[in-house]
Amino acid sequence: PAAAASARISSPAADWISDNLGSGYVVREKFMGGSGWSSTYVYTTEGGKDYFVKTSGGTKAEGMFKGEQLGLSAMGATRSVRVPEVFHVGTLAAGRGAFIVMEALRLGGSPDQEALGRAVAAMHLAPPADPSAAAGLFGFGADNTIGATPQPNGWMDDWVGFYRERRLRHQLNLLGDARMTALAKPVLDNLGFWFTDVEGAIKPSILHGDLWSGNIASADGRPTIFDPATYYGHAEAEWGMSWCAGFTGSFWRGYFDVAPKAPLFEKRRDLYTLYHILNHANLFGGGYNGQAQSILQRLNEQLSRG
Amino acid sequence: PAAAASARISSPAADWISDNLGSGYVVREKFMGGSGWSSTYVYTTEGGKDYFVKTSGGTKAEGMFKGEQLGLSAMGATRSVRVPEVFHVGTLAAGRGAFIVMEALRLGGSPDQEALGRAVAAMHLAPPADPSAAAGLFGFGADNTIGATPQPNGWMDDWVGFYRERRLRHQLNLLGDARMTALAKPVLDNLGFWFTDVEGAIKPSILHGDLWSGNIASADGRPTIFDPATYYGHAEAEWGMSWCAGFTGSFWRGYFDVAPKAPLFEKRRDLYTLYHILNHANLFGGGYNGQAQSILQRLNEQLSRG
Ligand SMILES: Nc1ncnc2c1ncn2[C@@H]1O[C@H](COP(=O)(O)OP(=O)(O)O)[C@@H](O)[C@H]1O
Ligand SMILES: Nc1ncnc2c1ncn2[C@@H]1O[C@H](COP(=O)(O)OP(=O)(O)O)[C@@H](O)[C@H]1O
Repeated sequence: PAAAASARISSPAADWISDNLGSGYVVREKFMGGSGWSSTYVYTTEGGKDYFVKTSGGTKAEGMFKGEQLGLSAMGATRSVRVPEVFHVGTLAAGRGAFIVMEALRLGGSPDQEALGRAVAAMHLAPPADPSAAAGLFGFGADNTIGATPQPNGWMDDWVGFYRERRLRHQLNLLGDARMTALAKPVLDNLGFWFTDVEGAIKPSILHGDLWSGNIASADGRPTIFDPATYYGHAEAEWGMSWCAGFTGSFWRGYFDVAPKAPLFEKRRDLYTLYHILNHANLFGGGYNGQAQSILQRLNEQLSRG
Repeated sequence: PAAAASARISSPAADWISDNLGSGYVVREKFMGGSGWSSTYVYTTEGGKDYFVKTSGGTKAEGMFKGEQLGLSAMGATRSVRVPEVFHVGTLAAGRGAFIVMEALRLGGSPDQEALGRAVAAMHLAPPADPSAAAGLFGFGADNTIGATPQPNGWMDDWVGFYRERRLRHQLNLLGDARMTALAKPVLDNLGFWFTDVEGAIKPSILHGDLWSGNIASADGRPTIFDPATYYGHAEAEWGMSWCAGFTGSFWRGYFDVAPKAPLFEKRRDLYTLYHILNHANLFGGGYNGQAQSILQRLNEQLSRG
């Protein structure tokens, strides 16, 4: 007997899927959680395809999702680590927010750490798709956000200058803590100290930019990453969130097998962690201020030891 | 036409499932990843039920899985936050390791932070199932592990003494770093300083013990936690891994609505983080030693400020 047709589900995102992805109408909506003005859904079409949708209210939502789309596309173009494919960013009715449509990943199990390391290394070594990055500039085609904080990406030809101005000074200015800024001054004024092994030889790598365990998973048995804060930078800047990434020895073994470790890699760890700890201090306050101070003290000590 | 019977899959864990869980033979095995001697699988039975299995080689595997089973059972008995139901711990052939069989959780989406907070608070407030804990003792029915490190749980009637000996001194002894031990001495010798608001009034709460983002997920739309290092302790000791847990304002709102915040909660944060940072120093070395030192410096400063 012919099955009764499932009722079509209609919403801005579901309608776009029904009209554009060639898999029939959306006939099922599964709410996957949300917070504040944001929600996530999996939509299923008559044709049996699943799509993952995030919606968010407010005037900044469209810009944020377009930034996420740009980042995921740039990362996906390297054909290295798996990232979700993005199909569309659209607006909700009358300036009430936006939505993003991407492939639904079948997430499950823990990622193979060595495979993840090799894949991220391959992404870092890929020749940049963006012409400015290919020409040796650091930054991105658009500003984006790191968590809820603006992340400025105006192109600069000097990595040390980019990291000093667009990352560290930017976060210190947002924090507006005179003591922290004073403690950071010698570090910012002497940032080249940490780069004597790679001076002028850093090539722009596409970075995920927010690589912690919440943004790393396994999909169909392959390591996959998502929810980036993408830009072209020094590959080692990727490790600024590694304190909360769950990387094992196998991860680093896989990574360094593909992208060998530079001489001053360990000395730069604190430098790259600092950006994210400052961001956490800006977003969450609490113990992160103290941690930022401790990192700056250690960096100052490195400077005085020479 | 009658469908061809699927071939029965045989392994120590699959055979136990086939023989004991009343859902027919295991007919499908899906490898979900692994590292070193450990592997994870989802087994599906003729009856259509899924089971999640972890296997591990070596002589310590059975003890570790039995500890995990005890912990998950104790947490599940509180009927609060969801944890996977454990069915069995068995051995692999001839002392070659062990396996654990639990319900397969349908993981997906991000957990509702407020619901997670409320559920963990309810777990912390549940009257202890263990008679020793119900009588006011801190510890657990068995020693277990925190990551790969032994975690001693011998019962003690005094929380400050338990945390000093079974947690801080235990990790410092494993580290064997004379400078760290010397820096910790004033803190250990004056641990009561941090407990003047709750002196003698701390009731043993069942703790997950390793609550970071890697062990938190959403299953069927409900927050769920797994892979614990369970014992009965001060509820606030639960936050020692919160620096990598992704808890939002909503989480804490939900938590404190059910289990109100004690006066010295913020002052004790560093104290409870220290155990896990020392453990990370023991397991991974690197920057964690410096972080432990920074925390001890802050704790010593708190002491001298009085
Ligand atoms: N493409 C996808 N397919 C399926 N699930 C996804 C996908 N992207 C994200 N998720 C799930 O939704 C959760 C939230 O997504 P994320 O992009 O991190 O959103 P947010 O920006 O709100 O943090 C993730 O932790 C993951 O479990
Ligand atoms: N009961 C379960 N059902 C389905 N998946 C699970 C279950 N328990 C764990 N997992 C998945 O397997 C991964 C590893 O499990 P975990 O218990 O953390 O193992 P380990 O002790 O090796 O860290 C988890 O991150 C989760 O994705």
